[in-house]
Amino acid sequence: MAVERVGIALDPELRRQLDRLVRSRGYTNRSEAIRDFVRAELVREQWETGENEVVGVLSFVYDHTSMEVADRILEAEHHELPHIISSLHIHLDKRHCLEVIVLRGKPADLRRARGKILSLRGVKHGALVETTTGKSL
Amino acid sequence: MAVERVGIALDPELRRQLDRLVRSRGYTNRSEAIRDFVRAELVREQWETGENEVVGVLSFVYDHTSMEVADRILEAEHHELPHIISSLHIHLDKRHCLEVIVLRGKPADLRRARGKILSLRGVKHGALVETTTGKSL
Amino acid sequence: MAVERVGIALDPELRRQLDRLVRSRGYTNRSEAIRDFVRAELVREQWETGENEVVGVLSFVYDHTSMEVADRILEAEHHELPHIISSLHIHLDKRHCLEVIVLRGKPADLRRARGKILSLRGVKHGALVETTTGKSL
Amino acid sequence: MAVERVGIALDPELRRQLDRLVRSRGYTNRSEAIRDFVRAELVREQWETGENEVVGVLSFVYDHTSMEVADRILEAEHHELPHIISSLHIHLDKRHCLEVIVLRGKPADLRRARGKILSLRGVKHGALVETTTGKSL
Repeated sequence: MAVERVGIALDPELRRQLDRLVRSRGYTNRSEAIRDFVRAELVREQWETGENEVVGVLSFVYDHTSMEVADRILEAEHHELPHIISSLHIHLDKRHCLEVIVLRGKPADLRRARGKILSLRGVKHGALVETTTGKSL
Repeated sequence: MAVERVGIALDPELRRQLDRLVRSRGYTNRSEAIRDFVRAELVREQWETGENEVVGVLSFVYDHTSMEVADRILEAEHHELPHIISSLHIHLDKRHCLEVIVLRGKPADLRRARGKILSLRGVKHGALVETTTGKSL
Repeated sequence: MAVERVGIALDPELRRQLDRLVRSRGYTNRSEAIRDFVRAELVREQWETGENEVVGVLSFVYDHTSMEVADRILEAEHHELPHIISSLHIHLDKRHCLEVIVLRGKPADLRRARGKILSLRGVKHGALVETTTGKSL
Repeated sequence: MAVERVGIALDPELRRQLDRLVRSRGYTNRSEAIRDFVRAELVREQWETGENEVVGVLSFVYDHTSMEVADRILEAEHHELPHIISSLHIHLDKRHCLEVIVLRGKPADLRRARGKILSLRGVKHGALVETTTGKSL
């Protein structure tokens, strides 16, 4: 797939500011930075319009000594099973676990899964990363 | 100030997605969209690094029947006076007012002003828009 | 309208952390802080579900020397007129203006207004504060 | 550790709205919802003040056919090794991988790790979940 080259008009001052940003963030060049900015907007749009398949990463911290929380998480996960691809479990300390669940599906389904998990008693904090399958980006 | 033209390398599929985004958001062309994405990143960075002068717009809704809230807002505003440029006041209904305050200064000062206003009793909701003086953008 | 008193169960350590937060943010007491947290969630929900009338504050910085930008802003504003309650205009420097527009309507209409304004050539940066009419809060 | 009971003053209308939110989000009761709102604010504050140890989950999607991206990711990860606890790798399709890295350390260190990974060529999208060790919450 041949790469295309498109021209962008920039005031010299804005171009200088962009170059400074490219350096400070560690990008190898302007194109790489701008591609990232464009992709970030496209992923935001995919989650807003809600029609495409997307990928979500739900991370949450819970107190496993809280009564039955592990059972309730497992039950919620199995209830949401069609969307779960994989998960990762980490023992933070004697009481606290971090669980990371990777989900794939429509934005509304993944956000519903988030709501079900985060409202469980014993789950103390969590958030959903709204990312992409990578296609068309 | 002569406009410069910089070349950006894009895969054809990413270029097509960008063009679709440009149309759906109503931009006149790719350059205008990309300049906006770059400026949004630069403004975010200005607020993160915190060294430059920035502009903030603090909007909040309050119940003016709540005891002494108007006095306390005025007092807080005058305490923060060096940063306030202007304000706008709107009567939403018999009980509720919306006030918009435009501030100019260092990010930390403007966020402190936000904290002082939003924690006042009678102030029900509010948020700070983190924007720019427009310079170098 | 009589105030009700509801009881909340908290671990002593979480209660201590809450009290620290109440003090550091300048709230007069726990109730005021918790009411604010609850209202913030309710306003977020109003904007997500999208059925209620809400209030938005759109702030944007533009370069008034950019060709015809003032005309295009005025035209966009009049096109969106049913939703605009009021506006505030500030001269930031010789080139840059800040305009603040207060809108009232359904979330989707206010976000569409934002898109129309922010994509205009000459408009450099802006954001929409998603707030409330204050009713039921 | 005995649970304490604290009283919160609420207008009847705000109490009704809170109860509606508790039901719609699937919380078992008001206390659980309010504890979650308080913890969310505390975690936000931990990341803002920056002095405590926190936990971050960095998720990113990359095109493994992009030249040397896997090597550059590994090198960046090893450069950031003191902070990485664990990671998870998922094959999204023939070209795209999702990698999830769990980090523990000061907020500034974890955000720097994010910058290093997300600016790599071939990394298409990503985000950092800012969460907690669970202590004191």
